Amino acid sequence: MKRRVAVYRTAHFNAAHRLNVPQWTPEENQKFFGACNNTNYHGHNYEIQVRVEGEVDELTGYLIDMKVLKGYMEEEVIEAFDHKNLNLDVPEFAELNPTAENIVWVIWKKLRQRLDENFSLSVRLYETPRNFVEFNG
Amino acid sequence: MKRRVAVYRTAHFNAAHRLNVPQWTPEENQKFFGACNNTNYHGHNYEIQVRVEGEVDELTGYLIDMKVLKGYMEEEVIEAFDHKNLNLDVPEFAELNPTAENIVWVIWKKLRQRLDENFSLSVRLYETPRNFVEFNG
Amino acid sequence: MKRRVAVYRTAHFNAAHRLNVPQWTPEENQKFFGACNNTNYHGHNYEIQVRVEGEVDELTGYLIDMKVLKGYMEEEVIEAFDHKNLNLDVPEFAELNPTAENIVWVIWKKLRQRLDENFSLSVRLYETPRNFVEFNG
Amino acid sequence: MKRRVAVYRTAHFNAAHRLNVPQWTPEENQKFFGACNNTNYHGHNYEIQVRVEGEVDELTGYLIDMKVLKGYMEEEVIEAFDHKNLNLDVPEFAELNPTAENIVWVIWKKLRQRLDENFSLSVRLYETPRNFVEFNG
Amino acid sequence: MKRRVAVYRTAHFNAAHRLNVPQWTPEENQKFFGACNNTNYHGHNYEIQVRVEGEVDELTGYLIDMKVLKGYMEEEVIEAFDHKNLNLDVPEFAELNPTAENIVWVIWKKLRQRLDENFSLSVRLYETPRNFVEFNG
Amino acid sequence: MKRRVAVYRTAHFNAAHRLNVPQWTPEENQKFFGACNNTNYHGHNYEIQVRVEGEVDELTGYLIDMKVLKGYMEEEVIEAFDHKNLNLDVPEFAELNPTAENIVWVIWKKLRQRLDENFSLSVRLYETPRNFVEFNG
Repeated sequence: MKRRVAVYRTAHFNAAHRLNVPQWTPEENQKFFGACNNTNYHGHNYEIQVRVEGEVDELTGYLIDMKVLKGYMEEEVIEAFDHKNLNLDVPEFAELNPTAENIVWVIWKKLRQRLDENFSLSVRLYETPRNFVEFNG
Repeated sequence: MKRRVAVYRTAHFNAAHRLNVPQWTPEENQKFFGACNNTNYHGHNYEIQVRVEGEVDELTGYLIDMKVLKGYMEEEVIEAFDHKNLNLDVPEFAELNPTAENIVWVIWKKLRQRLDENFSLSVRLYETPRNFVEFNG
Repeated sequence: MKRRVAVYRTAHFNAAHRLNVPQWTPEENQKFFGACNNTNYHGHNYEIQVRVEGEVDELTGYLIDMKVLKGYMEEEVIEAFDHKNLNLDVPEFAELNPTAENIVWVIWKKLRQRLDENFSLSVRLYETPRNFVEFNG
Repeated sequence: MKRRVAVYRTAHFNAAHRLNVPQWTPEENQKFFGACNNTNYHGHNYEIQVRVEGEVDELTGYLIDMKVLKGYMEEEVIEAFDHKNLNLDVPEFAELNPTAENIVWVIWKKLRQRLDENFSLSVRLYETPRNFVEFNG
Repeated sequence: MKRRVAVYRTAHFNAAHRLNVPQWTPEENQKFFGACNNTNYHGHNYEIQVRVEGEVDELTGYLIDMKVLKGYMEEEVIEAFDHKNLNLDVPEFAELNPTAENIVWVIWKKLRQRLDENFSLSVRLYETPRNFVEFNG
Repeated sequence: MKRRVAVYRTAHFNAAHRLNVPQWTPEENQKFFGACNNTNYHGHNYEIQVRVEGEVDELTGYLIDMKVLKGYMEEEVIEAFDHKNLNLDVPEFAELNPTAENIVWVIWKKLRQRLDENFSLSVRLYETPRNFVEFNG
């Protein structure tokens, strides 16, 4: 019987970042972003939770091989972001402020191009256990 | 590029309550609500998880300033409910049974009026890590 | 005032399983499922999270009595799956590969028949804290 | 081979309480205990973690049957404290301020008398995930 | 300045097992171990937490390189136990009942021989988040 | 009755850091510390867990007022470390490599001088949920 299921997989990376809008003065940035604007950066243990939804393969009972999904996450996210400075080391944030909202959007776009178009994709990013964001495309 | 993102923020409060329907006899209440009907109250570490969805500001990369959202949650929920007896100290429950379903509804209404109408709001309330509820409006 | 709320309840069971497609050779199964194909089984602490959504009863403030929902979960899931070998001891998996995708589907069907048809049901199954699945019907 | 191992088991109860020293005036209590002094009580999801250490039985490989330990915890702690008002419903706190430090001491004494004297006992009590206490006898 | 610090590192493995004392009859085993005696096995997501204590190296500020410790844990524990049936696939339990108390003892002995004798070692094993054991040597 | 109890309190801070030994060449540092040596820094959500043990005050039932302990932690740790670059912004690490082992030692010394000498102090620092350290003095 045809059935749609969603599978979730988590991963994590540790990174430094700072929030800053180049069009603003240092005072405006400091006022708006507060401590997140620290010139010398601060950092987080980021955790991502990827959700892939689609039709289960009736023979194997798998939606997608979790080892394959894990591989996409390691290649697109962990290798690119882990133990990095998001502002300085990750090209996607050269001109994009690395807020959680923007990081999750970048991750979604990187994973979206690796997945079969029959799957729908949602990504959640925990900046801390108390602050997190979600992008569904 | 225009994009919709959801941001989540958590907070917590500790409160006492009891469940009781005034139209029922004590025996009926005891039978229906069991230990939750204890005349002398019991209590919980409540945890709330607020979800706000809308369009990200392209200049700042923020959906909403988390410090602002945190402020709404503290003013509307923590100051009003923390270290309180929900039945006796919180006016909204003077005539409304403080079940998790009703508490989350009250919290949603209090936060809804503080948020820009372009944002959608969802609130989850954990009564324990094993029992929780969600209201999406 | 009429209002729809979702309530969540969790439970857990410990079980052994192995993944295998009988139409395939041992080599094909080993290649596709890897260590999950181990002839002697492996196991998990499965955690389920059940979501029931519907209209709150205005008198009691309950969507559904959590003790009743807990009872359904114990009868349909815990008694049937806990401390069992899913492949050998649970009839539903006699000819269905016990992947997380299939287990969550079986659980959903068992709980669906116990709930009032006015409620919508969603089930999430954690195979590990890092791998989980969801079925919404 | 003789060997000493420690086993841990958790349980939880939900209770209301208030902190108050009867020898003090209401103003003194309010000043010292703050919101925890609220006349109408507040509450917590308390979690206990019991540690029993001793010599493992070489035949069974058990230190103590966890079902037996669980039974002691349910009889001495959960039945006595769950869904109760610690100040009003629990005799041990009729004249003892129900601080976390005192609650864990009371629990330890209740469990100590049920355990074989060859076992050493330690009890941890979480009042919230951020505040907890430990008593080792 | 000389100083002693403890470092902790976690890892996890998924395995099947059953509890059984060969000197007993099936009825005695069933009575004593209950569902844990199931002939067809059940399983767990085991989590280990390793604690190594010693003197910090003043030049590097490391007690032990965490990558080295992680390597020992992977070689001695994860490769040996993950996705295995402890009773059938792991030689150490061929004649030793795989209770949590015995598993943590076996893990401790395997790791102890890999570590410098100046370090003290403690191992905690979570069979579930609610049941765990600890062996300190 | 005189009794000794331990109380625990947690807090958290987000910071950037890099590991580097100035006496070594860049190649030696890169080889030893790997990604943790990244010139541009990376970061963590650090969590601290402070344990204070001593004799409970028999009148109040408190070991130490948690609001006071929380205040020490905020003044000595959170204000000094949160949203900072440990290497560049925190004087204690100007010439001390900010490994977890060294950070926990620095925190312990800062808190030790604030506490009554009758209390014993232990500090645990989580760099990630999987890697943590402890210093007991």
